[in-house]
Amino acid sequence: MKLLNSAVLSTFLCVLSMPLIADQSAITKQQKETAQQLMATALKSDIGYNIVESLTTEIGPRLGGSEAEKRARDWGVELGKELGFDKATIEEFTMPFWDRGHLHLTLTSPYKQELYGSALGGAAPSKKEINAPIVYFRDIQELIEVKDGVLKGKVAFVDGEPMVKSQTGAGYGPSNQKRRIGWQHAERGGASALMIRSVGSDSHRFPHTGMMSKNGDKWATIPVIAISNPDADHLRRLHNLDRPLSVSLHSGSDWKGEVTSGNVVLDLIGSEKPEEIVLIGGHLDSWDLGTGAVDDGAGIAITTAAAKLIANLPQRPKRTIRVVMFGAEEVGLLGAFAYAKEHENNLHNHVLATESDFGARNIWRIVSNVNPEATKLVDEIARIIAPLGIVRGGSDVKGGGPDIIPMAEKGVPTIRLSQEGTDYFDLHHTPDDTLDKINPAELAQNIAAYAATIYLFADTDVDLKAKR
Amino acid sequence: MKLLNSAVLSTFLCVLSMPLIADQSAITKQQKETAQQLMATALKSDIGYNIVESLTTEIGPRLGGSEAEKRARDWGVELGKELGFDKATIEEFTMPFWDRGHLHLTLTSPYKQELYGSALGGAAPSKKEINAPIVYFRDIQELIEVKDGVLKGKVAFVDGEPMVKSQTGAGYGPSNQKRRIGWQHAERGGASALMIRSVGSDSHRFPHTGMMSKNGDKWATIPVIAISNPDADHLRRLHNLDRPLSVSLHSGSDWKGEVTSGNVVLDLIGSEKPEEIVLIGGHLDSWDLGTGAVDDGAGIAITTAAAKLIANLPQRPKRTIRVVMFGAEEVGLLGAFAYAKEHENNLHNHVLATESDFGARNIWRIVSNVNPEATKLVDEIARIIAPLGIVRGGSDVKGGGPDIIPMAEKGVPTIRLSQEGTDYFDLHHTPDDTLDKINPAELAQNIAAYAATIYLFADTDVDLKAKR
Repeated sequence: MKLLNSAVLSTFLCVLSMPLIADQSAITKQQKETAQQLMATALKSDIGYNIVESLTTEIGPRLGGSEAEKRARDWGVELGKELGFDKATIEEFTMPFWDRGHLHLTLTSPYKQELYGSALGGAAPSKKEINAPIVYFRDIQELIEVKDGVLKGKVAFVDGEPMVKSQTGAGYGPSNQKRRIGWQHAERGGASALMIRSVGSDSHRFPHTGMMSKNGDKWATIPVIAISNPDADHLRRLHNLDRPLSVSLHSGSDWKGEVTSGNVVLDLIGSEKPEEIVLIGGHLDSWDLGTGAVDDGAGIAITTAAAKLIANLPQRPKRTIRVVMFGAEEVGLLGAFAYAKEHENNLHNHVLATESDFGARNIWRIVSNVNPEATKLVDEIARIIAPLGIVRGGSDVKGGGPDIIPMAEKGVPTIRLSQEGTDYFDLHHTPDDTLDKINPAELAQNIAAYAATIYLFADTDVDLKAKR
Repeated sequence: MKLLNSAVLSTFLCVLSMPLIADQSAITKQQKETAQQLMATALKSDIGYNIVESLTTEIGPRLGGSEAEKRARDWGVELGKELGFDKATIEEFTMPFWDRGHLHLTLTSPYKQELYGSALGGAAPSKKEINAPIVYFRDIQELIEVKDGVLKGKVAFVDGEPMVKSQTGAGYGPSNQKRRIGWQHAERGGASALMIRSVGSDSHRFPHTGMMSKNGDKWATIPVIAISNPDADHLRRLHNLDRPLSVSLHSGSDWKGEVTSGNVVLDLIGSEKPEEIVLIGGHLDSWDLGTGAVDDGAGIAITTAAAKLIANLPQRPKRTIRVVMFGAEEVGLLGAFAYAKEHENNLHNHVLATESDFGARNIWRIVSNVNPEATKLVDEIARIIAPLGIVRGGSDVKGGGPDIIPMAEKGVPTIRLSQEGTDYFDLHHTPDDTLDKINPAELAQNIAAYAATIYLFADTDVDLKAKR
């Protein structure tokens, strides 16, 4: 009886408090219904898949600063017009262009075998063919400890453990230290070139490219090559057998001077507060090895399709929804910095920013870094998108995606809809990042989550402005 | 009650008949126990994995007729001696050598993009760089129907559906018709070169190489290139959009004259009927793109390790167990034909032959093509190895593996222990066929099945000789 009484009491209290909760809601019944309708429509729509299919097929690989990236910008503007955005513009910027060129990489001792490698972004060319013994380093720490000058006439190889797989991709940071700074220590040691185990969680014969870090304002002056995990395993086994390793290497990668890149900006102008901007986007450039389907054709498709579904509503939401297709992300967030600079006097009107740049597996979580009132809004939105399998994550998680960093550093509030990333680093920066890796149903789930979330942010009466 | 009576009766009849079955058994209690002991030992042993690790690491890729294949033969003889085989010899033969050389393959219209391709075995070089429009054929049948001479100045591309995946690999035959004979029709049409969708069931950016068929005694006189499934998907999408396709192609693959290859023959001499031979094996050569772990380092490891476990028994089985490491399988079963010719006067003493050349996933089935008395023996063996998850398949299934074909055609009885092959054609003939693809536990299951089966064949009193 006590149990029953307690249950009855709870129900009673709950019923009593319901009108109060309803009053406090930041989301109206109609807004909620519209969001639910957007999700239902998105799950049945193939618009997102059509966009990423078009980008990867009609444009193909699109390295930051390349002629292909320019074609991609024109494609983006045309797409924006076709889809009925109110404004579609390109904001150009200049940048230094790094080109991969050719690579020959062959193990020459203990026997001849082609190695599957790829230059890292920013690497210098070999002036001529390098034929040299390999010095094996078990991990980046061993290379950091190398004495100056002792690698003269040698090629350094940094092994390390394959990247840890997880839904958050947390293994990436620790693993890519060798990619970022390895060259500085190889150069200090006097090495003719550096090879590293790829930063990737797969066991396929694909190298993972990616940008190195500058040392102050200096780029590497030697070739730096990532080799596939199976190739690195192979060198490790040979090294453990005490076989003398040597390599023949010829790389044409080099800097090619200043070129023009740009960001594509597509706007749905707000009906009540057009000056306030809810910014979403992805990056338009890709690495040149694959066709950039997962990284980041998916992000372009998800955010553009979500905005298009909102554009199809009978009226525009109150705030402006802006889709930015950032240029030259892979080669150093150059579009992101250009955007933040171009709009520096108007960032206070950017009331929310988020980027989709982590593939197209199902979204499983929403995190935020917004003002306290807006945090409650995110809690409510999380309940609305929960039927998609999405949970509420932290409310003080900084960063809305790589291209949002420069804005977020200047105080722009952010959220992030986190994709399941367990296999993201299998494909990341490899030739294998192609359209077939995208699951249309999962892509549609992403668009459903984005459409509902962004619509609610754009239409809410909650004050979204940063209060810090 | 009727049910119960019936059950009791069954049990009674069963008990009555048991001594009779025991008498009829071709396998003694001790032989059965030895076989079970071999299985238990195999499942705990890492000898097989050590063998395939050594072959793929210390020798690497080993194209038929190459210097690497010679190193592999020396490795095989040394391994045989180390493991205590009674005899370890090389039977040499000569063969024409085909070398892959370099390949540049770039889509040049509608835009520039590298294609991931690889020459097919037997392909001719391009005398100079070919720059030509691509003519798209939806499947091999469309190319077969092409009119003479209409492809002059063009490169033909044969698409087709990706290979059907299955545990038996049944999709391979239909899919590889384009690889086998496509060149004949492309040449007849006057094409400068032929590209085909890879014969493979994966969706990774790896081309699948493989040998073409001769037309009478003629090889192709044009370059023939397999491209990866994602690249073929890409061309298909562009073709469906009516984009004009063209390609730049330069291939160095060519025939390089006569060289020496050979088969490695390792014997455990039988204790009672040494002249009767139970032959097992795999092929020692591999394609040059990967390190030939799955195809067929696994087969070498499985059969050598199984024989080694039998060699560890207190005494040799009655018949001779012969492990043959066939040379030059990939390039036309050259070792297989050489073996059958070398031993043509003694094939009547080859009382059983089988090869492991279908990867290293779990064995799920045993099939046979042996005399009626021996068929009953296989039924009994199937019951003994059933705890490994193996079922009895057909008793009139011809072929004991590719290298057994020439022997089987001359009447040598065969069995086959079928590996689960669903992902075999994901890796087959690609750069991705590397050691990490082998699961040590599944490899050990293979060795357990081989050791028990081969021991029982070698030691049985059943007459195994062909009776046809």
